[in-house]
Amino acid sequence: MSEIDYASTLESVHRDILPRLGDGAVADYIPALAAVPKDKFGMAICTTDGRVFSCGDAEETFSIQSISKVFALLQALDLVGSQALWERVGREPSGTAFNSLIQLESEHGIPRNPFINSGALVVTDAITAQCVDPASKTLGLVRRLAGNPDIHRDEEVARSEALYGHRNAAIAHMLKAQDNLKAPVSDVLDAYFRQCAIAMSCIDLARAFLPLANGGRFADGRTRAMSASRAKRVNALMLTCGLYDGVGNFAYRVGIPAKSGVGGGIVGVVPSKCAIAVWSPALDDEGNSKAGAQAFEWLAQRTDLSIF
Amino acid sequence: MSEIDYASTLESVHRDILPRLGDGAVADYIPALAAVPKDKFGMAICTTDGRVFSCGDAEETFSIQSISKVFALLQALDLVGSQALWERVGREPSGTAFNSLIQLESEHGIPRNPFINSGALVVTDAITAQCVDPASKTLGLVRRLAGNPDIHRDEEVARSEALYGHRNAAIAHMLKAQDNLKAPVSDVLDAYFRQCAIAMSCIDLARAFLPLANGGRFADGRTRAMSASRAKRVNALMLTCGLYDGVGNFAYRVGIPAKSGVGGGIVGVVPSKCAIAVWSPALDDEGNSKAGAQAFEWLAQRTDLSIF
Amino acid sequence: MSEIDYASTLESVHRDILPRLGDGAVADYIPALAAVPKDKFGMAICTTDGRVFSCGDAEETFSIQSISKVFALLQALDLVGSQALWERVGREPSGTAFNSLIQLESEHGIPRNPFINSGALVVTDAITAQCVDPASKTLGLVRRLAGNPDIHRDEEVARSEALYGHRNAAIAHMLKAQDNLKAPVSDVLDAYFRQCAIAMSCIDLARAFLPLANGGRFADGRTRAMSASRAKRVNALMLTCGLYDGVGNFAYRVGIPAKSGVGGGIVGVVPSKCAIAVWSPALDDEGNSKAGAQAFEWLAQRTDLSIF
Amino acid sequence: MSEIDYASTLESVHRDILPRLGDGAVADYIPALAAVPKDKFGMAICTTDGRVFSCGDAEETFSIQSISKVFALLQALDLVGSQALWERVGREPSGTAFNSLIQLESEHGIPRNPFINSGALVVTDAITAQCVDPASKTLGLVRRLAGNPDIHRDEEVARSEALYGHRNAAIAHMLKAQDNLKAPVSDVLDAYFRQCAIAMSCIDLARAFLPLANGGRFADGRTRAMSASRAKRVNALMLTCGLYDGVGNFAYRVGIPAKSGVGGGIVGVVPSKCAIAVWSPALDDEGNSKAGAQAFEWLAQRTDLSIF
Repeated sequence: MSEIDYASTLESVHRDILPRLGDGAVADYIPALAAVPKDKFGMAICTTDGRVFSCGDAEETFSIQSISKVFALLQALDLVGSQALWERVGREPSGTAFNSLIQLESEHGIPRNPFINSGALVVTDAITAQCVDPASKTLGLVRRLAGNPDIHRDEEVARSEALYGHRNAAIAHMLKAQDNLKAPVSDVLDAYFRQCAIAMSCIDLARAFLPLANGGRFADGRTRAMSASRAKRVNALMLTCGLYDGVGNFAYRVGIPAKSGVGGGIVGVVPSKCAIAVWSPALDDEGNSKAGAQAFEWLAQRTDLSIF
Repeated sequence: MSEIDYASTLESVHRDILPRLGDGAVADYIPALAAVPKDKFGMAICTTDGRVFSCGDAEETFSIQSISKVFALLQALDLVGSQALWERVGREPSGTAFNSLIQLESEHGIPRNPFINSGALVVTDAITAQCVDPASKTLGLVRRLAGNPDIHRDEEVARSEALYGHRNAAIAHMLKAQDNLKAPVSDVLDAYFRQCAIAMSCIDLARAFLPLANGGRFADGRTRAMSASRAKRVNALMLTCGLYDGVGNFAYRVGIPAKSGVGGGIVGVVPSKCAIAVWSPALDDEGNSKAGAQAFEWLAQRTDLSIF
Repeated sequence: MSEIDYASTLESVHRDILPRLGDGAVADYIPALAAVPKDKFGMAICTTDGRVFSCGDAEETFSIQSISKVFALLQALDLVGSQALWERVGREPSGTAFNSLIQLESEHGIPRNPFINSGALVVTDAITAQCVDPASKTLGLVRRLAGNPDIHRDEEVARSEALYGHRNAAIAHMLKAQDNLKAPVSDVLDAYFRQCAIAMSCIDLARAFLPLANGGRFADGRTRAMSASRAKRVNALMLTCGLYDGVGNFAYRVGIPAKSGVGGGIVGVVPSKCAIAVWSPALDDEGNSKAGAQAFEWLAQRTDLSIF
Repeated sequence: MSEIDYASTLESVHRDILPRLGDGAVADYIPALAAVPKDKFGMAICTTDGRVFSCGDAEETFSIQSISKVFALLQALDLVGSQALWERVGREPSGTAFNSLIQLESEHGIPRNPFINSGALVVTDAITAQCVDPASKTLGLVRRLAGNPDIHRDEEVARSEALYGHRNAAIAHMLKAQDNLKAPVSDVLDAYFRQCAIAMSCIDLARAFLPLANGGRFADGRTRAMSASRAKRVNALMLTCGLYDGVGNFAYRVGIPAKSGVGGGIVGVVPSKCAIAVWSPALDDEGNSKAGAQAFEWLAQRTDLSIF
């Protein structure tokens, strides 16, 4: 097997994507997100042997939004263990994105997976029930994984989310009514909105996801962030549930386990090879970064990184 | 047409219902309701010519719960008018009871009718947006309609509802997210829980509903509570939407427009003849008073009061 | 109570409706229906004391389509009795029109009421299981009720329905899979398509529905078409389930139990007073005759015929 | 990387699974399937370098049922091409299994993916529209892929399916009504039931799926069964959509793209390594072979075959 030339492939992807930037719509449900320029684009790759490649706005921080659901899941698994968590949330794709509330009604309060909002609220509740300051707990994990103590949350975004987050409040109250939320609704929502508001760069994100590509180990190959088995399983969850209603299409076109956020970020994991983060704020109809998904597709094709 | 003998019919219905009391389950989602003895039964009839007949516990007050949705509708129609209100809520039966949240998602925030919880929350919002103390405004209307200034709300029930009302909170936040709630969510919920907690007797309720049977006029035949046309229309809404998922069956068995509440009350309207209120706290599977529905059926059969 | 002047009210309604004819779309899912001129309009009233009033195209025959569901229900109740039939079909409004297949899945093969397609197929199956030629059996009942032996079915329409009726075939196969269809699927569909294709005039229809307004008796006041109780109950079913997703609105605006068909007919029943049939082929969004519903509304307002 | 010892791992899995055989229920919706003994178990592995390992009843043929959906997809892609097919069927997981009809209604006749029944019917229609004998066409492909001209279909199973297949008939008529079926309904159903009735052994199946693991090439490494890109994409579809409502859990526990059938077979593909087929007829609640899924999980764990 020939060596992958990450540097020049990244360069070619960057060059090809530039004319496409700006196509799609930036998330506008909160003012703080709507203000981000549409033509931003950054991409970073961290390899399991410790190299880092990047291009464009890869060092600029952005709101990770739903990508935080992966960090929250890892944190909750650490705190309450696998068995206790999977009794409260499923591991199946959700069908259509808008389904969360309908699905909660028909499945009696068990969200289908931890990467839809209802599931992430249950995950956040599991953390909230175990520690005084759940948002800081998860932020601490993020800093450790990325090896960057400067990662912070954007408090303006957190406040904005709380102000406009009526749909998430609806889901949280529904979960409470169905007895699948232990902490007070407002505490869970507060922690949830704050973890969504973490700001990171593509380089931070690729670094933080590297252990998932590296059998649970950091780039040094020795220190363990999680067990090898947990890394595999979280990757499987991302592949089947990581991109809402675009998950099947992304697997088909790209073939890399990934998680997206409405801030325009997508992070992918190629087992044994690398973690990849991309950021471009204009979204497609499913709420995934349009240029980001395209960049992933080209990268996967040109480097044969598909896991299939 | 021979005169209806309300007194002796009421007596016969009372006698026949006694052995059946206690069958069914009392609403237990809040402690204050769960404590009501199962074998309570009262019934009252107010005729359009001003007579009042009653039996059993007809003078004892109970929590009117969803029956308050009719009062709230009348109040909102007074305050904002027919046209403005029907732009925000529909007039169609809802299919299954549990549907409210699902239906909100698929119909973009327009509740199907004002007698399901989502619709009643929109109605309450219309009142809340027009006055400082919406709950007292509606209570004032209730007192005027019943001609009883002593009608009050049970504050313990109101507090209980607020404490356990996560499903209603979920619906209210969903309506807010869908831009069909103008006042703050907590204000609307507060007014809603307080109007549900109004306590009335069967005699109060039959009196308060009499104008709906009397072309909009009070029992004196002169003073108008509402237009004749509004009375007809609210009766039509009760017949098609007044008993959740038991509405078709009640129309089939009884044939009288009616509204029920989980406190065990049912109030019915027979145009040109009378208003009828019954109370018995044990409920059937659809959440309607079991003995109450049976009493209505017997009364309708024995007096030929069906509107069909 | 002053005498209702049916003749001049009908004349005024006819005059006012003429400028509105043609608004809406004629049902076009089969060629035979699509060919009917949009500006047709007829109306007929049969009173319980035997008078007949009519205007416009009231003597012209048209395809009764779903109005036949009332005749089929009466026929099935005659053949298998009330109890056996209501074990296989419910009596509740259906929520949204398009729900039939969804509802069948979630409620395990029990259609919500006999006036949606799934319910009517079960009703037709009950007839099919009892006689060799179910379509002719129901046609015989129609002729007896209308007192017109010349009523026939339009075989071209029946063939067209069969050719294009894939949605009904889907429902029938689903009912068979759920064990709520006894006769072979093709026999039931055949009988169903043929009863939908019965052609009648407004005068025929008003006559055929008169017993429902007359306590179960024909216009002679003596001969019985059905029991008084059955007449009441079928009227109740029409009011709550007779106009698909427009049922609540029709009750609100008109206040008369009625059944519509996509051929543009609507038949209503005013207990103790009259039966009313209207026909105008252009439909509103819910599939009910647009001019027909308007004519009903004006007639009800001008004569105070609302049952509420 | 050390060599995988397929032979001894297969032996250990076989030994461990024996005490568990018989747990679960055999599919009983058609008599021909219900008669299969519950304690059957076979497993076969074909490696990309041409070796074959097997144990238990790996040479015994069984009804492949939904596994045929993969063969039909490959056949349809050959006949009409990628673009034409993906206009008629989606590539997203379906959420709950029972959803198919509901989903068809709400998504206007575009099945979510080719591995649910509605999607497979559209795929079969694409084949049916291109050739006289679609079932034999697909059988021909199966024989070529497996290199076994003796593979046949079980005509008794095919007849049984047709006799009891009312749910599939319902779906097919619905697709026809929604204009997403070109051939006559009965032709499509006939071809569908016949392809489901193909009988194969584990060894046949593992051989037939090998090209999906081998970059599109047969075990000889030269002859091409399909393009490398198509192989990858079909693998991605299997991982996200191949096991109905158990797909997320299988990815989590096993981590291998796979397709199951109610006959008790599961076939998996490990890119660059091998194809694996297992058969054991007792099913879990999601309709997947219970012992088969367990055997896959053990095999993946003991050989580190997960793609994650």
